[in-house]
Amino acid sequence: MPDSAGIEAQFLRNAWYVAGFAEELDRTPLLGRRILDLPILLFRDSKGRAAAIGDRCPHRFAPLHLGRLEGDQVRCGYHGLAFGRTGRCVDNPHGPTGALAVPSYPLEEKSGLLWIWLGTAEQADPALIPSFDCLDESRWLIGRGYLGGNAHYELMSDNILDLSHIEFLHPSLGSDAVSRARVEVRQDGESVIATRRMTDELLPPNLARVYRSGDQPVNRTMEVSWHAPANLLLDVAIEPAGGSENWRTGSQSLHLFTPESACKTHYFYIGALSRDWADASTAAGFFDALGRAFATEDKPMIDAQQAMLGDSDLMALKPALLPIDKAAVLARRRLAALIAAERASVD
Amino acid sequence: MPDSAGIEAQFLRNAWYVAGFAEELDRTPLLGRRILDLPILLFRDSKGRAAAIGDRCPHRFAPLHLGRLEGDQVRCGYHGLAFGRTGRCVDNPHGPTGALAVPSYPLEEKSGLLWIWLGTAEQADPALIPSFDCLDESRWLIGRGYLGGNAHYELMSDNILDLSHIEFLHPSLGSDAVSRARVEVRQDGESVIATRRMTDELLPPNLARVYRSGDQPVNRTMEVSWHAPANLLLDVAIEPAGGSENWRTGSQSLHLFTPESACKTHYFYIGALSRDWADASTAAGFFDALGRAFATEDKPMIDAQQAMLGDSDLMALKPALLPIDKAAVLARRRLAALIAAERASVD
Amino acid sequence: MPDSAGIEAQFLRNAWYVAGFAEELDRTPLLGRRILDLPILLFRDSKGRAAAIGDRCPHRFAPLHLGRLEGDQVRCGYHGLAFGRTGRCVDNPHGPTGALAVPSYPLEEKSGLLWIWLGTAEQADPALIPSFDCLDESRWLIGRGYLGGNAHYELMSDNILDLSHIEFLHPSLGSDAVSRARVEVRQDGESVIATRRMTDELLPPNLARVYRSGDQPVNRTMEVSWHAPANLLLDVAIEPAGGSENWRTGSQSLHLFTPESACKTHYFYIGALSRDWADASTAAGFFDALGRAFATEDKPMIDAQQAMLGDSDLMALKPALLPIDKAAVLARRRLAALIAAERASVD
Repeated sequence: MPDSAGIEAQFLRNAWYVAGFAEELDRTPLLGRRILDLPILLFRDSKGRAAAIGDRCPHRFAPLHLGRLEGDQVRCGYHGLAFGRTGRCVDNPHGPTGALAVPSYPLEEKSGLLWIWLGTAEQADPALIPSFDCLDESRWLIGRGYLGGNAHYELMSDNILDLSHIEFLHPSLGSDAVSRARVEVRQDGESVIATRRMTDELLPPNLARVYRSGDQPVNRTMEVSWHAPANLLLDVAIEPAGGSENWRTGSQSLHLFTPESACKTHYFYIGALSRDWADASTAAGFFDALGRAFATEDKPMIDAQQAMLGDSDLMALKPALLPIDKAAVLARRRLAALIAAERASVD
Repeated sequence: MPDSAGIEAQFLRNAWYVAGFAEELDRTPLLGRRILDLPILLFRDSKGRAAAIGDRCPHRFAPLHLGRLEGDQVRCGYHGLAFGRTGRCVDNPHGPTGALAVPSYPLEEKSGLLWIWLGTAEQADPALIPSFDCLDESRWLIGRGYLGGNAHYELMSDNILDLSHIEFLHPSLGSDAVSRARVEVRQDGESVIATRRMTDELLPPNLARVYRSGDQPVNRTMEVSWHAPANLLLDVAIEPAGGSENWRTGSQSLHLFTPESACKTHYFYIGALSRDWADASTAAGFFDALGRAFATEDKPMIDAQQAMLGDSDLMALKPALLPIDKAAVLARRRLAALIAAERASVD
Repeated sequence: MPDSAGIEAQFLRNAWYVAGFAEELDRTPLLGRRILDLPILLFRDSKGRAAAIGDRCPHRFAPLHLGRLEGDQVRCGYHGLAFGRTGRCVDNPHGPTGALAVPSYPLEEKSGLLWIWLGTAEQADPALIPSFDCLDESRWLIGRGYLGGNAHYELMSDNILDLSHIEFLHPSLGSDAVSRARVEVRQDGESVIATRRMTDELLPPNLARVYRSGDQPVNRTMEVSWHAPANLLLDVAIEPAGGSENWRTGSQSLHLFTPESACKTHYFYIGALSRDWADASTAAGFFDALGRAFATEDKPMIDAQQAMLGDSDLMALKPALLPIDKAAVLARRRLAALIAAERASVD
């Protein structure tokens, strides 16, 4: 069912989006999920290879995820047509399979994430899937989470691209050093990178415990890298503020936003601490705190922001632009250019 | 309140629709129900005769079903205007009754059902009300149920007209003989009749108990008769598969669909087993199982189908048509012709 | 978020509306409330003076009521911009405050009510705020309540302007004397006043206890005064029906309706009994009964009335007009004239 919001949904089609965590298919063998306002079905074939096809049976438009997974095929739970990973109907109990089919979409499983391509299939180059070091579980302790955002995905990218909000929205994760920080923003090819440097900062106690800084001041560098359309890596590096000691901790987190529809967003997030120095118990507590902050501080604020916007686009309402918006504005411009180029190539 | 769905609601007006079960008025003396997107009030006068009038007081548009039944009249619960079965205001505490009135609609009570006519009253011939043998409680054990469908009523007719779905949607009510069955579809005047013949079928245990077939194979014939606009009778006949014995059981069920609005449907259903051979306990268990299947298997699938369609009409989205759709397609065509003829006669 | 109802919201802008009870700011220091479909923030500065500004941060449109009150300023909970009672940004942690601002609105606190003016600020004369004697707590025992109505505010004014509904909607607050009453309606400047005189009335027991009439008949006069746009005073005077005794009781109640959006209304109500003869316990019971009647009898009826109207305006559907509607029709005409005049002066 199309989203009824009045915002014209302008999505970049030729891009890899996270469709889900690989582990979700263990719990839900037929995973129906709306992505870019399309009904998508995710499943694994008998060899364990993940696949994505349209979730709408061509016969009576029943959702295929209400059916059954049978080996390599998905059987519709209404009248029994079965479809394989190519989308072709492989069994029609009521006649020939003929041209019966649902769309199929390139899907790649990489480091625990399922990446889908909803644009021109020929352009779906797996090499374009962003690589994130922190997904390597041999070196990182990892925690995963999901939130359904009731907001346009760019509002959610904006949130990460401007971490000045930590001081105000996340009192337990910040200090006044956050607002005194120097921020540099640069473009690096298709990426926008915002680097925030807090110097001589006394971390709040919970962070000091995670990062093992004790009660000594640290320099904290938070580098956010935005990858179009809406995948963000936040790298946090902690080191002693004075030059006397020489240790380094930190964390990484991924904020992977996939539009569900015009004003709904799948938010897949991952926290990571290096196995070099962190233990599982510290990591679990840290990931819990992160998830709680996202769910109880970020999400309510961004959902409320969208509610204030109603059906209007943020930029159409002429928000006051501040220096802190620089990275978000650059990313929005870059994304708008990519979408415009894609549309132009189609016309 | 008009339904906001984008489907242009095209209802056949000159037709009898089930407005409710007669027994509902015992529990709810003033029964407000939206039918063909009109607010309708059902009640009984002091002689027990059921009546249908508009549920919207002409004074301030308060729903009359929030008022009181006083003998032959319904008194509005807001300012006290009272209306009789003709819709005429019969008491105005604040002045003359004058031309104050709500619409009244022909209503017929027949075999436990209340049938309403929302078209041209002069054409409301009670002889046009379909007769269903199984409503005769002297010969049938009967079970009644109601579901509120979140789907266009034709999707719900389609469901009954194509019983190939039993094998896939109702594992406990089918066998693979269902898919091997021969199906014949014919038109009989205004009706569409689909006959499905399963031969040499081993019924699932629960059905074998109901139909008393034990562990012997049977021939099962399921005949669906569709009566415009959306009233369906399913007659099931069971007989031994070999020629050696000579008994016959079976069941009937009614699937009476009345549009509430564009994408909402009142589903009145009735199951019936012959008193010739069935006992009350068997019947109760059977009706329970039917009701459970309708509520937990049919309804979720059809509601999900509608959600996939959104505001679009099924046929506008060009579904793949299979041989199993023959009866549904014929019924849809017949209904479309009736609606077109009705509209033409109005213009 | 604009209300999606199809009724064109025609509000009188140049008027004082009740924005809240003063005491609400004790419990909710940052009170976000939609009024005339605008997001409004109510708060007190450090001197305790109530203020009203726009509830939408100009930076990213976050609701300011999710932020913090810091002395004289409200700090946005997202990125920390702070605004004072004039709406001007008084602190921007990320740069100059420049022209950053939200709208500010005249707000007056008077006798426990917060009155807001959303029209041309220069015309916001506090002398125009209606004075209600019963708000003087030195002479009246007072009970306050709030309901969120799902109806156009004029439907809610209509309800008070025509008290003939008491007999039908509030059986415990009326008697058949209500329908036999004489009603006079007159205009008095900008007000519409409807006076209902019940003579020789035996009050229902609960009212007889409140008004101390025992079992003797009384004359009850109920005078409703409507003040544009939608503030109503109901004055009830009780005196013995015969001329032999000479006492007088009664009550006052305020029904203050403020449009939230096209079909939602803030309903602030106040009941009052004179300290001259009433005690706190009688008053508490009376206010409880009033609140219960409003919540369980008036509100469901008016909400249902609106649901029947859907997106249509009452008058556009040509309701049958009765003599009892005289006051409501006059008030609606007067308000329409005021709105038309206001629009003409803007064009």
